[in-house]
Formats: sequence, structure tokens, C-alpha cells
Amino acid sequence: MRPELLDRVLALLPQESGRPELRHFSEMLRDYPRRGGKGVRSELLLASARTHGLRPGSAGWEGALWLAAALELFQNWVLIHDDIEDDSEERRGRPALHRLHGVPLAINVGDALHVYMWEAVHRAGVPGGMEEFLAMIHRTAEGQHLDLTWVQHREWNLTEADYLEMVRLKTAHYTVVVPLRLGARAAGVTPDDRFTPAGLALGAAFQIRDDVLNLRGDPHLYGKEIGGDLLEGKRTLIVLHWLAQAPGEQRRVFLEQMGRDRAEKDPAAIADIHRWLLESGSVGYAQDYADAQAREGLGLLEEALADAPDQDAARELLSQMRELATREA
Amino acid sequence: MRPELLDRVLALLPQESGRPELRHFSEMLRDYPRRGGKGVRSELLLASARTHGLRPGSAGWEGALWLAAALELFQNWVLIHDDIEDDSEERRGRPALHRLHGVPLAINVGDALHVYMWEAVHRAGVPGGMEEFLAMIHRTAEGQHLDLTWVQHREWNLTEADYLEMVRLKTAHYTVVVPLRLGARAAGVTPDDRFTPAGLALGAAFQIRDDVLNLRGDPHLYGKEIGGDLLEGKRTLIVLHWLAQAPGEQRRVFLEQMGRDRAEKDPAAIADIHRWLLESGSVGYAQDYADAQAREGLGLLEEALADAPDQDAARELLSQMRELATREA
Repeated sequence: MRPELLDRVLALLPQESGRPELRHFSEMLRDYPRRGGKGVRSELLLASARTHGLRPGSAGWEGALWLAAALELFQNWVLIHDDIEDDSEERRGRPALHRLHGVPLAINVGDALHVYMWEAVHRAGVPGGMEEFLAMIHRTAEGQHLDLTWVQHREWNLTEADYLEMVRLKTAHYTVVVPLRLGARAAGVTPDDRFTPAGLALGAAFQIRDDVLNLRGDPHLYGKEIGGDLLEGKRTLIVLHWLAQAPGEQRRVFLEQMGRDRAEKDPAAIADIHRWLLESGSVGYAQDYADAQAREGLGLLEEALADAPDQDAARELLSQMRELATREA
Repeated sequence: MRPELLDRVLALLPQESGRPELRHFSEMLRDYPRRGGKGVRSELLLASARTHGLRPGSAGWEGALWLAAALELFQNWVLIHDDIEDDSEERRGRPALHRLHGVPLAINVGDALHVYMWEAVHRAGVPGGMEEFLAMIHRTAEGQHLDLTWVQHREWNLTEADYLEMVRLKTAHYTVVVPLRLGARAAGVTPDDRFTPAGLALGAAFQIRDDVLNLRGDPHLYGKEIGGDLLEGKRTLIVLHWLAQAPGEQRRVFLEQMGRDRAEKDPAAIADIHRWLLESGSVGYAQDYADAQAREGLGLLEEALADAPDQDAARELLSQMRELATREA
């Protein structure tokens, strides 16, 4: 995230206390924010605020910055809990928080960061801002429940529609729909209804693009482990499309591997599956699907912003969105 | 909690959805609230609101009820996460949520319930209510961090002052200080400064009484496993007082057992320790300490409420507080 936002987040968190245990707590709260996420969602929110006529440095801009800080705090507490739920090994190039300090302390730090998120929302003082965050997290938690339930029950008998519903709930609301809406709220404008279908399509494109990069991205640019989704048993459009038409033997090997916990998976079999996926048409199918969703979303967004007060900012916002849906990293 | 509050909580949570996974999510959200906690904190808040002149059924009473519902939601999401952090087996006579559905789903349900808590705070619309909740949870999370850190590092080299700091942060704010303050806020009154020292003393008395009951309570009345704190390796005033003067051999057995995970503890050795504690003067010492804290807290609270508008309600509130600090269950 941009340095002024990181400073704002860090200034909100408790300062060092005299007690060593509470100094340690304060350090744990700062760990994920300091690891340097890209700040995609806060940038989108700020671009939306400008598009709606809010000028950087104006009186209302402080509210937009606090909402942007709150979105980054959301992302960070959710990642701490997600990493426990998926038992991920790494986050942004370092061990996940629970691998450094154990699950109990990490759950509690995620909860505390969650509360600081509400503190930032409250400081923003933007009418309607709190309602946007409430709705956003309700949807995200529902999507997370779908995803986790499927993993727990080894559920692969899923359609494209199932996958899309999960991704819209889990990713699209907090990545696109709500940042667009919060930018409008910060500018004192009622969000355009078209932000929802536009954001759902663009959010799906963003996630499917991520799934594609996870299989065939450039390891130096992508920053996460290539093939990591297979090891974690993630449902993706690519895998679901491939499963529906895979040769029986490949399907059998896949389901057998996905029935195992991460540590028990056979690296050679996972490498085979990775190759089968790349050789199938399913990666291309998913990329085409993402491109179509991105076009649809961008079209709707362009319409919605046609009369926005700041057309230069609108063009920047559209170009940020296009970049997100077609990125290499 | 009283039936009208439970109804309010359940009505706030999402209704059944068409998708089976989301129906399951909605059931998980309702599980802990339905298990029937005593509603100690919400009753205290409502008694404080009446004492400050707010009449049940008046326009402002709705705000008090939403804050009370939010306190109960707080208690429930915190218990879900606490039970994971302590790896507790049971909660209110049934298996803990993560033992029924696994850790990942239970963390996510706790997070979702946390968000519904903020929804209830928001609906209350009581000026200052949000700030009270923010401060309350910051302190609770800090206290939880102390407690969890000591467990993780097998830290027993602790003083009475360490224990009191932990209990004030972790228990006293959300059990007494903030319910008293929220009642005043609901009535549109600035909370009396004496609520803080009064609530810290009464909250400590409440927790120490709980620690005593955990060792020598009536199993039918108490509702939790007698001796459970020893199995979970909880720091209590009783144990710290006893440790400071225990015979070397008993101390050695104790520290050896506390160095083990719950499942590895030797039941016979735990039974010995339980007996040593009961035979030592430390349970009596802790009960005397709790009584002194309760007297101090009640004295301060009585002073603070001397000019409150509804003196009948003030007497009820003081009697509720007295009951809490001297209860048998």
C-alpha cells in the first residue's frame, strides 16, 4: 500500500507498552501490514473517490484515506485468519504468522486487527461507510464458508456456477464492488447500482486471472509458489473445467491426491496433474472466461462513470481495473 | 440471556438461504447463542441503564437492548475463538464449535459473529457506544495475549500483580466496567469515572471467585468441569500464591505437569495437585482476596450511584454485583 496509508495504519495501532508481552503484541499487529501488500483495493477506493469529484487534500479526503486504511486492515486481518484456515506456509515471502507464533496468538492478533479496522472506519466518519463494511464482510465470510466447506468435505462435484458464486462472495465484493462504492460514499455520492454487476464481473476476472497465474505465471513476478493452489487443494475454474472432461485415469489420480492433506500429497503426482492441466485446453478456457468477464465488467463500469465529475480520474480508474484483470503478477 | 435478547440476536443473523452450505453456516452462527449463557453482562448493562433513568419501553430503551445484544454477541464470538485457542473440549455442556466442525470453519464463524456484533452496535445508534466497544475489545485482546503468551512459554514465574493485570484486561473491562458505562451511554449520561476502578475491582473479584469454584464448586451448580483450569494450565491467584510457598517436591511435580500438553497430563498427579491446593491455605487466601476486592468495588460503585436518578434500580444493580462476586455457580 502507499506509504502514507501504511503510516496511517501503523499510527492507529498501539504504541510500545512497558510490558514486554504487550510490546510483542504490538509488533505482531504490525507484522503483516509491514510486509508490503500492493494496496490494490485501497488504490481503487481512492481512484473512485477522485472520479466522484473528491479532491486529494480537500476536507473530505481524510475520510477517504481512513476508509482506504480500513480496507487494508481488513485485508491484513483476513489474511492472518485465512493462513490459519488454509494452513498456508508463507505470506509475502515470510512464514505465515501462525507458523511464527502458533495458532492461538495468531487468531487473537487477527481479532485485534479486526477491531482496529472498525476504529479506522469510525474515524473516517463517512455516512454509509459502516454499512458498506458490514455488508462486505458478511459476503466475504459466506464465500469463505463455501470454500472451506468444500475443502473439508473433499467436494469436487461442483459446477462453474458454484465456483462463480463462491468467488463473487469471497473475492469480488471486497476487491472491487465495495472499493468502488466506498469511493462514492467518501465523495458524498450514492453509489451507482451498476457498480455491483460491474464489480462482480471484474472481481471474478481478477480471481480467475490469479488462478491462471498460479499455474503458469512467472515465478519471479508472481511472488507466490507456482502450483501452490494444487497443493492447497483450491477449487478453480480451470480444475473444474478440466475435471468434467479429463480421462478417467487422470481424474482418479487427481481425486486421490486431493483426498490427502497437503503434507501427504505426492510431489510427482502433483507435477503430473500440473502438466495435464497446462496441456489441456482448460487454462486457455479459463483465461478466455476471465477476459470475457473483464470486458463485461469494464463496459458496465464505463457506462456507470460516463457522467462522473472527474473524467480524467475515471479513465485512470478504468485503466487500473483493466490492468488488474490482465496482470502478470 | 433473557429470551427477548436471544430473539433479537437470532433475528439479526442471516435467515436460511437456499444453498445447503449457507444454511449450515447460518446454523453454526446460531449455535453458541442458543446454548443459553446466563446473560450476566447484558443484565448489568440494562440495570445500569435503568439506574441512569432510562425507562424500559421508552424510546431510548431500544438502544440499550441493541447494546445488550451486542455484548452477548461479543461474548459468543470470543468464546468460539477462546475455545480454539485453549483447545477446550466443551462449552455449556456440548462439544466446542471447533470440535464439531473443525478449526477453519469455526474461526470463520467467530469472525462472522464478530461482524454481527458491530451490526448490533450500529443499530443501537447510541452516541459513544462504538467507542466503548472499541476500547473494550482492545483491552480484552491485550489480556488474552498475556494469558496465551504465558501458556505458550510455560511461564509460571509470575506475581500477583501480573495475574491482576491480566484479569483486569481480559475479564474486568468487558464483564463490569464497560457494561456499567454502556448503561450510562444508553441513558444519554456521561459515565462516572469511578466505574473504572469499581469495575476493575469487581471484575477481579468475579474472576477469582470463578477460579475458586473451578477447584471446589458444586459440580451440579458450577456447570464446568471441576479442576478443568488445572488441566488447561490456567494461571490463577490460587496457584500463584501456593507456588510461592509450596514444598519443593510438590512444586516440581506441578511444573513438570504444567510443562505437558493437556492430553499428556497424568490424571493421578493432577488429582494430587488439586488436593494440595485444597489443603493449602491458598484457596481461602484467594477467596479473602476476592471478598476484599468485591467490598472495595461495591463501596466505590455505591458512591458513584448515590445521586443516580433511579435509586430502586441502583439497589438492584448493587445486589446483582454482590451476587456475581459471591456466587455458587
